[in-house]
Amino acid sequence: MKKRIGVIGTGNWGTTLAKMIANNVTKKNASKYFDKTVVLWGIEEKYEGELLSSVINLQHINKKYLDGVELPHNIFCTSDISKFTDIDIVVVALPHQFIGTMESFKNVIKNNCIAVSVIKGFIDHPNGSITLISSYLKDLLGCRISVLMGANIATEVARGTISEGTLGYNDEDSKEILYYMLNSYSYRVTCVKDIPGVELVGSLKNVVALGCGLVEGLGYSGNTKVAIMRNGIIEIRRFLKFFYPESKDETIFQSCGIADLIVSCLEGRNYKFGVMKGKEDMSLEDFEESIGGQKIQGTGTAEAIFNFLVFKKRTTDFPLFVNTYMIFVENSEPSEILKCISTDSLKDVFD
Amino acid sequence: MKKRIGVIGTGNWGTTLAKMIANNVTKKNASKYFDKTVVLWGIEEKYEGELLSSVINLQHINKKYLDGVELPHNIFCTSDISKFTDIDIVVVALPHQFIGTMESFKNVIKNNCIAVSVIKGFIDHPNGSITLISSYLKDLLGCRISVLMGANIATEVARGTISEGTLGYNDEDSKEILYYMLNSYSYRVTCVKDIPGVELVGSLKNVVALGCGLVEGLGYSGNTKVAIMRNGIIEIRRFLKFFYPESKDETIFQSCGIADLIVSCLEGRNYKFGVMKGKEDMSLEDFEESIGGQKIQGTGTAEAIFNFLVFKKRTTDFPLFVNTYMIFVENSEPSEILKCISTDSLKDVFD
Repeated sequence: MKKRIGVIGTGNWGTTLAKMIANNVTKKNASKYFDKTVVLWGIEEKYEGELLSSVINLQHINKKYLDGVELPHNIFCTSDISKFTDIDIVVVALPHQFIGTMESFKNVIKNNCIAVSVIKGFIDHPNGSITLISSYLKDLLGCRISVLMGANIATEVARGTISEGTLGYNDEDSKEILYYMLNSYSYRVTCVKDIPGVELVGSLKNVVALGCGLVEGLGYSGNTKVAIMRNGIIEIRRFLKFFYPESKDETIFQSCGIADLIVSCLEGRNYKFGVMKGKEDMSLEDFEESIGGQKIQGTGTAEAIFNFLVFKKRTTDFPLFVNTYMIFVENSEPSEILKCISTDSLKDVFD
Repeated sequence: MKKRIGVIGTGNWGTTLAKMIANNVTKKNASKYFDKTVVLWGIEEKYEGELLSSVINLQHINKKYLDGVELPHNIFCTSDISKFTDIDIVVVALPHQFIGTMESFKNVIKNNCIAVSVIKGFIDHPNGSITLISSYLKDLLGCRISVLMGANIATEVARGTISEGTLGYNDEDSKEILYYMLNSYSYRVTCVKDIPGVELVGSLKNVVALGCGLVEGLGYSGNTKVAIMRNGIIEIRRFLKFFYPESKDETIFQSCGIADLIVSCLEGRNYKFGVMKGKEDMSLEDFEESIGGQKIQGTGTAEAIFNFLVFKKRTTDFPLFVNTYMIFVENSEPSEILKCISTDSLKDVFD
């Protein structure tokens, strides 16, 4: 029973995952587990007058979102949802704001499918509560769900640099087959039975990255940046402990935890926006335009987390999350971020 | 009973600490706790024909080790050990290789003195066992000991950027007075009752920084660097758990833990040596010459840790520490470092 694999999303991470998987399934001995073709679904869009899916299928390159990286020829790109009716393993790699697109897959994807989400963030509701993307997908598709997160700057992974990833799973079948599908010498996967832990650290770190970029943009140096990272890690752990007590504290030490946080705070898009905000008070719209229309998730996450903390009456326990929201969404004074560092020792003893 | 404070060591960190403390003790209300003069001891050495101590006392600048930073006028620099006979609080900030100098202070420093060490590393013995610097100083001076570590690039702290530090203490008296002496708006101190934890993380991270620089020098990107950092953190925790079970796992989340590790892996001297080793196989001697004769501790620490792990028969549990030693001291192939990342998932399933 060879598993047929489909990847949803032709952005840089979706394309990179399709490439990694397409390489893995053509390896010696993989053919008894996996069908050789990896189906890559993307919304119908054009690149220089041609359909992006045609560019990918004929030129084996995603010129729009992953230029310069040659793709294996066993990737078949399509905008036709019906191609997913016989898919056994689905990788959901849509940008967060297009999660609604999954509604179209609801009646297409089989119930016994194994799904893995790489989407950072969660769905927020008017009352302040939040739903993990993994829970939303599980309910929507009616299938088993896992999540894949990690210290993965997509372009670097695509170029084959050695990277680590963390698979958060709930059932052993999913764990085994997804590990086979994803792990390789250059992409080293660790499996953790803790979906909310893996998923939430990956989302929350975007808020920390905004703050980290901000202090750099304001002219502060390495010591201050790592202080923001450290205080961010502390708030992430506190968040999990308070609101997802079933998650495991050890997950913070996985690639999806500290490693993802560090790399995002050094070179991720949210960090870069933070720098521009600190330097010249650049708006989110201008920043997104400056990076070719790509979307960043940190500000949306910061707002959802703020509303959630208000809903849970816990704002005072999360000064970095709250201040980052106030600065990036409510336009508070950027230097307020410095009040989130070691708040216990802020009181000056003598002055 | 005003405490008289002495700092031993006129290197960049010793001078920076003297500056921070000299600023703190002149603050309103500090005068009931501390004598206003901070005595700074350094070995007799010359800078452009003049005694360095004279340059510091007359020009209020340490031109040799902390150029460009104005020092408070209440620092009194001397090479006379007898000036420490009436010191109540001593900050030991000698470079690790000059620790033997403390023998000269043995009969000078009072037994009821409070000492705080900022020296990274430990003393290694021919049989492979190690002694923490804090234990060595406690026994040598016969006084109470604490340690101060953290994400502190000295020059940045000296320039007043916002930084965090971790004080590892054992007795409440030391904790209180040292916190008063060190904490300020720009240097935010957290106190942890865990001397070995605070002290060892600060030493071991230098080994990780070597490895982190090495992968960068070899041409690997951010994902790989944070993978080294993450695996390093895991080995540091394992080291403490195995050999110093009295230490606290929470200490890793202090500034002396993850934050110090990150900043050292991004801009510290050991990281920089790692880069040069990876790029052009530069020797330790050439590197130290290239940074004006400053010493780096990572290679010595790597060797001592390797010998210690051999002594404890635990080398297989610490692949990153062991491989870093093999590469930097025994001249193994640098790419061996890549075998230390996620060793559990290194086995490729299909090839």
